[in-house]
Amino acid sequence: MHFGTVGILGVGLLGGSLGMALRARGLVDRVIGIGRNEERLQLARDLAAIDDYTLDVNEVAPQLDVFVIATPVGLIPTFFQKAAADLKPGAVVTDVGSTKQKVVSECEVCVQRDDVFFVGSHPMAGSEKTGVKSAHADLFDDAVCFVTRTDRSNRKAEDKVCEFWGSVGMKVHVIAPDIHDKMVAATSHLPHLLASALSLFARDRCAENEMIKESIGNGFRDTTRIASGSEDLWKDIFLDNNDNLLEYIEAFCQILQRLAKDIKEDNIDALEQELREGREFRESL
Amino acid sequence: MHFGTVGILGVGLLGGSLGMALRARGLVDRVIGIGRNEERLQLARDLAAIDDYTLDVNEVAPQLDVFVIATPVGLIPTFFQKAAADLKPGAVVTDVGSTKQKVVSECEVCVQRDDVFFVGSHPMAGSEKTGVKSAHADLFDDAVCFVTRTDRSNRKAEDKVCEFWGSVGMKVHVIAPDIHDKMVAATSHLPHLLASALSLFARDRCAENEMIKESIGNGFRDTTRIASGSEDLWKDIFLDNNDNLLEYIEAFCQILQRLAKDIKEDNIDALEQELREGREFRESL
Repeated sequence: MHFGTVGILGVGLLGGSLGMALRARGLVDRVIGIGRNEERLQLARDLAAIDDYTLDVNEVAPQLDVFVIATPVGLIPTFFQKAAADLKPGAVVTDVGSTKQKVVSECEVCVQRDDVFFVGSHPMAGSEKTGVKSAHADLFDDAVCFVTRTDRSNRKAEDKVCEFWGSVGMKVHVIAPDIHDKMVAATSHLPHLLASALSLFARDRCAENEMIKESIGNGFRDTTRIASGSEDLWKDIFLDNNDNLLEYIEAFCQILQRLAKDIKEDNIDALEQELREGREFRESL
Repeated sequence: MHFGTVGILGVGLLGGSLGMALRARGLVDRVIGIGRNEERLQLARDLAAIDDYTLDVNEVAPQLDVFVIATPVGLIPTFFQKAAADLKPGAVVTDVGSTKQKVVSECEVCVQRDDVFFVGSHPMAGSEKTGVKSAHADLFDDAVCFVTRTDRSNRKAEDKVCEFWGSVGMKVHVIAPDIHDKMVAATSHLPHLLASALSLFARDRCAENEMIKESIGNGFRDTTRIASGSEDLWKDIFLDNNDNLLEYIEAFCQILQRLAKDIKEDNIDALEQELREGREFRESL
């Protein structure tokens, strides 16, 4: 397996780790970082995430065999469109966005060429950390990557994108964008929103009584860890996946209200049963 | 500092770790484990958590300088009452319960002796793990312990209980039971209930589509880690602290609905602002 010259637009935690993983495993000729901030790109080069960099995607586009757009989801179609005219015939383009339906449908129509191929990806290897300084070559080991398939997908490009993520250690699943978005709304976006809401809730309580901070232990810290994620990324994700997320906020609130009812009415057996089932599901993971 | 003979009723994670910490630091003559299950008590002795054990609290009560009741909160007053007639004059009795108002008010009146002293404690060093096999002597290092003060508190006994937890490495705060319960409702009980509700929510989604389990990553795992806690302990805690918890479920839902409204109405600036404030509070911890 060899992927030639790979361009990574956005050399942060994911983009930087991808560059490191590809280079460390000898899977590429060159990794070129693309971005707006020269200082950060220099840091990425110093950290061996990329071989070289440019501030101008169109300058390097003709050299790229694989072009990975690792920006917040809202910007992905724009950057694809910007680079498209200069891409090498046969180039495969993918992304790392946490939502897929809107991004994939836009990217599939925004470029008027039938010799460059967009296939959506969602490597589930992010964390609350950001920036290339947190990147490492084994970020993707054993993590899951979803690769999207639609009626417009080019099957050869899809295979290449699957191989690409598999080659850096990921377990790859091919999935329809709408199914993907519904799944991650449940297992990633709702948990993130809850963590943010709980953090805001605790901030309000601390404003009432400063001493409350003293009672914050590891349970609270774990439950809210992902609230440290970048609001810049997450606002896009929430708005992009709004229908699924709103449906699931509603479903979650119903469960919470059912537990509240058990607590209010002293339904000890029902409460114990629910807590047991929650524990058993958690332990099954 | 020396605490003579210490009895620990309930030699699980907390009770076992306490025995280990007291013995490892040479703070006691003997630690006697008290319980119902001889096999578990033998394990506790093998693991150096206790010097000896008994199944009969009344048999050892006359020897105890400090008696620690480390059972689920619902059982604490019962065990105090059971042991009380046989306790040595001057004995100090405490507990490790996660709620304090009900336990402390019951323990302050359930025993008709003015020469044994109950002071409530809440060492915040639990985890989702249970059992003496998970115990370790440094569990309490730098963790917070709340010790309760009421109009009925004996100040000398309170000082001794503060020294007791301080001697195993805890940061001790003296607090009124009702303030304590309000604080931990916000920072411990609500987060636990949310983790359980999220786990139940994900179980329901997995029942709709098994593939969803594949999309569960570290974010979900962290957010739900405490849902692995024992339903036996937590149902008691929730019911015991029901008024505070119900008030805070309501306050949390209001925040969640505000975020849902921002998502529904595409209020990108408001949403970003909320997520930023949530992140900043989390990072301030």
